[in-house]
Amino acid sequence: MKTAYIAQYRDSLLQDVVPFWMKHSIDREWGGFLTCLDRDGDVYDTDKFIWLQCREVWCFSMLYNQVEPKAEWLDAAVQGAEFLRKCGRDEAGNWYFSLTREGKPLIQPYNIFSDCFATMAFGQLFKATGNQDYADIAVATFRNILARQDNPKGLYTKAVPGTRPLISFALPMILCNLVLEIEHLLEVELVERVIDEGIHAVMDVFYQPEHGLILENVNPDGSFSDSFEGRTVNPGHGLEAMWFVMDLAARRGDDALIRRATDLTLSILEYGWDQEHGGIFYFLDISGHPPLQLEWDQKLWWVHVETLVSLLKGYLHTGDKRCMDWFEKVHAYTFAHFPDPGHGEWFGYLNRQGEPLLSLKGGKWKGCFHIPRALYQCWKTLEAIVEKEEAGKVAQLS
Amino acid sequence: MKTAYIAQYRDSLLQDVVPFWMKHSIDREWGGFLTCLDRDGDVYDTDKFIWLQCREVWCFSMLYNQVEPKAEWLDAAVQGAEFLRKCGRDEAGNWYFSLTREGKPLIQPYNIFSDCFATMAFGQLFKATGNQDYADIAVATFRNILARQDNPKGLYTKAVPGTRPLISFALPMILCNLVLEIEHLLEVELVERVIDEGIHAVMDVFYQPEHGLILENVNPDGSFSDSFEGRTVNPGHGLEAMWFVMDLAARRGDDALIRRATDLTLSILEYGWDQEHGGIFYFLDISGHPPLQLEWDQKLWWVHVETLVSLLKGYLHTGDKRCMDWFEKVHAYTFAHFPDPGHGEWFGYLNRQGEPLLSLKGGKWKGCFHIPRALYQCWKTLEAIVEKEEAGKVAQLS
Repeated sequence: MKTAYIAQYRDSLLQDVVPFWMKHSIDREWGGFLTCLDRDGDVYDTDKFIWLQCREVWCFSMLYNQVEPKAEWLDAAVQGAEFLRKCGRDEAGNWYFSLTREGKPLIQPYNIFSDCFATMAFGQLFKATGNQDYADIAVATFRNILARQDNPKGLYTKAVPGTRPLISFALPMILCNLVLEIEHLLEVELVERVIDEGIHAVMDVFYQPEHGLILENVNPDGSFSDSFEGRTVNPGHGLEAMWFVMDLAARRGDDALIRRATDLTLSILEYGWDQEHGGIFYFLDISGHPPLQLEWDQKLWWVHVETLVSLLKGYLHTGDKRCMDWFEKVHAYTFAHFPDPGHGEWFGYLNRQGEPLLSLKGGKWKGCFHIPRALYQCWKTLEAIVEKEEAGKVAQLS
Repeated sequence: MKTAYIAQYRDSLLQDVVPFWMKHSIDREWGGFLTCLDRDGDVYDTDKFIWLQCREVWCFSMLYNQVEPKAEWLDAAVQGAEFLRKCGRDEAGNWYFSLTREGKPLIQPYNIFSDCFATMAFGQLFKATGNQDYADIAVATFRNILARQDNPKGLYTKAVPGTRPLISFALPMILCNLVLEIEHLLEVELVERVIDEGIHAVMDVFYQPEHGLILENVNPDGSFSDSFEGRTVNPGHGLEAMWFVMDLAARRGDDALIRRATDLTLSILEYGWDQEHGGIFYFLDISGHPPLQLEWDQKLWWVHVETLVSLLKGYLHTGDKRCMDWFEKVHAYTFAHFPDPGHGEWFGYLNRQGEPLLSLKGGKWKGCFHIPRALYQCWKTLEAIVEKEEAGKVAQLS
């Protein structure tokens, strides 16, 4: 059974998803990537969103570093990085949100996640190339994120200062992953401090013990804000964060933290699962009120694949059978609904009933990132599970 | 048939929708309105969104002015206006986007439509009260809108200047309606200039003759921008704008303009109608590409009721039988899906299949505005149609 899963994840990654992006998304005229691809891979829009440009550089670099040193993967990553190096930042070194196809800035650097994904991209590409320029960009961008982290939107903040000073989950969550991505470029003390702060934020501040859930926004002291923002639960965010935390916990040998992250994975998933149609909701209101997001009941690709990673890592580390049961259920839903065998790659957006809501394979927010990263992570985690089981090391809970 | 419609619209307005808001939404503790109401009318959030505060002041003032001078309607409007006068603006006279229940500013004045709805509210309330303070607020706010109209988002603009300087349909469209709302407070030359500019923007700049559609964003010269923003069609926006234009055209006795607005109503509706499930889509891409908005296929209350108004006004002025055929079809869909007879008032958000997506009766964007305004407009327009038909004056096209 698990060996069949290994083949399925590996083959989906290497025979379907990666070739689709290699074939359709490289902009051989202007450099960088064309990410707005229709069902067949044809380009329907040429704007370049920094999130997706950076994530695709990261993805091809990671494949080169982790799977196989293929020249075509490295070439794809390097040409994307050169486009970004030339056009991606304002004079202060902040990353724009989007560019035109030719690289002219379109949308200002209001969004700090552009900088997060730039750090990942250049950190991973440095590993592949040894080019110190890439390391320098990664480190400078990372330090800029830390400097901006208490006011990430800067000038573009619409909240009146002081009235309801909420803090948001997304940045501390991403930092938990980002710090390991560029650990090789940072001093040890900084790495340990960012890890401590990240784990504290995710597992203490945003985690709500009475619900077994993570909130998207809380008061600065971690308490509940009874407002639209404060009531918002994004199950996919919490589920993705759990494998980031498990990776940090595994690095430190902290079994208790792995146990907590595994339990939290299961409780978020039980809460977020659509009992009627299957799949995981996109947004919910923790008090059961109507969520603000009209897309709340949709089923998104990244939510499902990130959940698969957390379930497998939870199983690998704890042997908790509930992880494997849920993995089989989420795997079945995911592979029955998201891949598009006739045309290649995966749909990104399904309606509540599980039918494709949009035919795109890539757009403003979906690019070459969550699916290949998760397929790789699942493949390798399944291999580790099999290895451990063969060595008789997985504790079988029931 | 038409007299049955008259009764249905009048009774829905006066026996269902208006009483629901009168009963549940007045904040007797802090003033203003509580607009986040669940299916039964219970308050689930207390934030005060300036759009909806102003629109409710406008609505009760309009009912007082147009339907019946009921003291309870005027009292509701005045207490809302007093809350807004006290708490709604920053020091420069710009209207905030939202306030806490007590009236502390929450979200900055980044959104010029707050100012538009404030102008409507205070202009209409001045008609009811003769209180010069209300007239002064309406006029000062209107002049501030005109001063800000070329850069409505001001500091909060995320677009890099110069790269893709699109102009947006929403403000010129609203001005077509707003200018008649406060005509009694403005000098004649200004009224005529705003009307000329509004009609030109809607019917020349944003209208795309080759498609028979209106775009949400175009280049400053009115040409097509092949970008996500440039390809966006919001059928409801165009359909709503058509009755604003018909009102302006009727005021000027411009039959050719009424004819154009009627034809455009029909062509937008034919384009926006969901052939599979019925109802009007929320967003479409004019080139047939995937729209950016994940809520693109949802059916929204305001889109449907504004369409009913345009169809009836088109029929009243032109006698075009296609308007009445389409009115019957959209009426049947609307009354079969949006009203919630057991609990009162109407659902706002349906999924593509026509089932309620959210159970709310009011929220951040849905308040006491589109439904009562459209019910009133349809009721009165149906009466005018009957009167004209009885006088044998409606040209019967076939």
